[in-house]
Amino acid sequence: MRMTPEEEVLEKAGKARRAAQVLAGLSADVKNGALQAMADGLEKNVQRILGENARDLEEFGKTSPTSSLVDRLLLNRERVLEMAQGIREVAGLRDPVGEVVEGWVTAQGLRVERVRVPLGVIGLIYEARPNVTADAASLCIKSGNAILLRGGSEAVRSNTAIASLLRDSSKHLIPEDSIQIVETTDRRAVAAMLGARGQIDLIIPRGGAGLIQFVVENARVPVIETGIGNCHVYVDKDANLQWAGDIVYNAKVQRPSVCNAAEKLLVHSGVARAFLPGIVKRLREAGVEIRSCPKTREIVPDAREATEDDWYREYLDLIIGVKVVDSVEEAIEHINKYGSKHSEAIVTDNYENAERFLRDVDAAAVYVNASTRLTDGYQYGMGAEIGISTQKLHARGPMALRELTTTKFIVRGQGHIRR
Amino acid sequence: MRMTPEEEVLEKAGKARRAAQVLAGLSADVKNGALQAMADGLEKNVQRILGENARDLEEFGKTSPTSSLVDRLLLNRERVLEMAQGIREVAGLRDPVGEVVEGWVTAQGLRVERVRVPLGVIGLIYEARPNVTADAASLCIKSGNAILLRGGSEAVRSNTAIASLLRDSSKHLIPEDSIQIVETTDRRAVAAMLGARGQIDLIIPRGGAGLIQFVVENARVPVIETGIGNCHVYVDKDANLQWAGDIVYNAKVQRPSVCNAAEKLLVHSGVARAFLPGIVKRLREAGVEIRSCPKTREIVPDAREATEDDWYREYLDLIIGVKVVDSVEEAIEHINKYGSKHSEAIVTDNYENAERFLRDVDAAAVYVNASTRLTDGYQYGMGAEIGISTQKLHARGPMALRELTTTKFIVRGQGHIRR
Repeated sequence: MRMTPEEEVLEKAGKARRAAQVLAGLSADVKNGALQAMADGLEKNVQRILGENARDLEEFGKTSPTSSLVDRLLLNRERVLEMAQGIREVAGLRDPVGEVVEGWVTAQGLRVERVRVPLGVIGLIYEARPNVTADAASLCIKSGNAILLRGGSEAVRSNTAIASLLRDSSKHLIPEDSIQIVETTDRRAVAAMLGARGQIDLIIPRGGAGLIQFVVENARVPVIETGIGNCHVYVDKDANLQWAGDIVYNAKVQRPSVCNAAEKLLVHSGVARAFLPGIVKRLREAGVEIRSCPKTREIVPDAREATEDDWYREYLDLIIGVKVVDSVEEAIEHINKYGSKHSEAIVTDNYENAERFLRDVDAAAVYVNASTRLTDGYQYGMGAEIGISTQKLHARGPMALRELTTTKFIVRGQGHIRR
Repeated sequence: MRMTPEEEVLEKAGKARRAAQVLAGLSADVKNGALQAMADGLEKNVQRILGENARDLEEFGKTSPTSSLVDRLLLNRERVLEMAQGIREVAGLRDPVGEVVEGWVTAQGLRVERVRVPLGVIGLIYEARPNVTADAASLCIKSGNAILLRGGSEAVRSNTAIASLLRDSSKHLIPEDSIQIVETTDRRAVAAMLGARGQIDLIIPRGGAGLIQFVVENARVPVIETGIGNCHVYVDKDANLQWAGDIVYNAKVQRPSVCNAAEKLLVHSGVARAFLPGIVKRLREAGVEIRSCPKTREIVPDAREATEDDWYREYLDLIIGVKVVDSVEEAIEHINKYGSKHSEAIVTDNYENAERFLRDVDAAAVYVNASTRLTDGYQYGMGAEIGISTQKLHARGPMALRELTTTKFIVRGQGHIRR
């Protein structure tokens, strides 16, 4: 008898839960061995993955042949080998489990330690790119967690093939049920995951604003919001304009489809005439559309007018909103009102303005004289990341292995009681 | 025109948000000065507080005159002075804001720091005890957060009087709007708080299981669950039975109405005949009712039978469930199935069993040879606590000042871009 989507989710979450209890007690050596075996498994089965991916692409091409989405869905030999290499890099990272975060002896002689332990079962709800399957699974296994994956329906064959290879190639070392993938494409499976309190310890949504909004609105399982980025670069009156130009160009153009790309440029009125014509020219040459405030149009008359809605938007495209402001305070106020609290940058050589921006802008990452594109686990030297959190609880900014753990208090006494 | 509950919540949350922006930038000296002024304010106005409390008690007496609830609601001169003293102790704690949690320079020369910052606006939904108003407000102000309080309707006059005194006595140092209290007793105010995404950064419910369940089920604002404790003491076959007796008695009897009191006793079959008759006698002399498994009744024939539901229940009363188990594994399995992941204790002199229990029991705090009643910020030497988190995200176990903060990445470059 066929299972309902709810039954499939609960059964797989239950299997993951039991696997997690075993995983929590495994040594780093065993987990690293499993990760190396997973990498081997992918490398030996490139053709099988590409075959399933071709079927996904064929199916997808019938309905929504947008080229950028096809590019995200497409796998080739190189991309599969990169996935395997990524898993080996995770194996090389330090195991966060067992770390004694802090410890002390109380006045009464009680020995208190706060020790890092896995969260348990992580639910990942994601879209498009099949490499996320391997990336997320390897980070979860390394941190001692089981994972329940729910990818987009357009990639279901690729994702299922990858998850199946990861399971098979590591089952001699870790429980086979450590990696679970929801195979139904019925959207009720997502709702079932979001309601699985006690079965799933954390849900991470990775995808567009619509997916993340849906998850946040409907989840009763704890969620970490990731990756909505309406990021700003503010060019102060005391900016090094060479740096400013390079940073704005990099933040907007280097990879416009990602969350840490800049969506807005704020320029101090004192340097607007000196700075705007040159950067607008450079951006337009790269195909960027300018949407602007009235003061910007005094300098760039042919720019399109930005609506109120524009200031809130994450374009993920070659579009930038440009606004002239009269002070660092006005820039900060604008960012705190319209921004998504992801990554925000000031370009300045003014000490006071730099410090004020760093202190008063409320965001996961704030920059002086650097591009917002640098918000990334690898760029920060933290190793792989499972997402960039834009919420304040538990994790903020690039999330790596440590953010997939919690702590417990371990307390040792000699007959201690409370008086 | 009278505001609706929703309008009251949103207006006060908005005021708190603006106050929070100021609070985030204040030095520890200023915040500590405000806290001392608050303590002075309470001490000088004991009569006013007791007057409002008397009105609450009079109103409450008409409807639900349960003595334990009256005791929780009742204030007297000593309790008000204790509140003031508690605020002074918070002033003496170290300010968590501004702590550089970690920092490094990347291979490209980017200076990355993770710095502790306030969360912003904390919403507290609580029941009965009016001292929570002062305790929570002082912890929030110390950690640079504004607070929106929503106490139980039975204590609304006491809570409002306390909050009003805290505001008035500190407004020469911090924004008056830093402490907000919802004055309507309409329950729609709770729903409005739970939906106020972007206005409130974190909601902490403090109260009975019903309140916490309601908050968790309905919140779209991030929540930290607190304080449901179905805690166990497991007496192993190799236990020091003197310690075991003292710990079980303390965990059950010393203060049965709180979340870290023991609700269940598990006893290894190898020591059941030696241990149970004595502890049952002691517990019964203290008025404790025994609910038991069949094997327990072979030793204590007149004990009432425990139902399946009993094993899940948090009594918060002089009742204890008693079960005989055949191994430490069975004890761990029982705890992980029925427990609430709060505080769990083993009494043993066996090294392997102690380590296995510490590792495999999934709870905020696990103990060897100590009472579950010790799970408490003061007992751990951490200072005041705003609650005991039983969830895994962000905070687990006693929550103090640090748990009321988040971090942001502060990144300094010299024209750094992503390549």
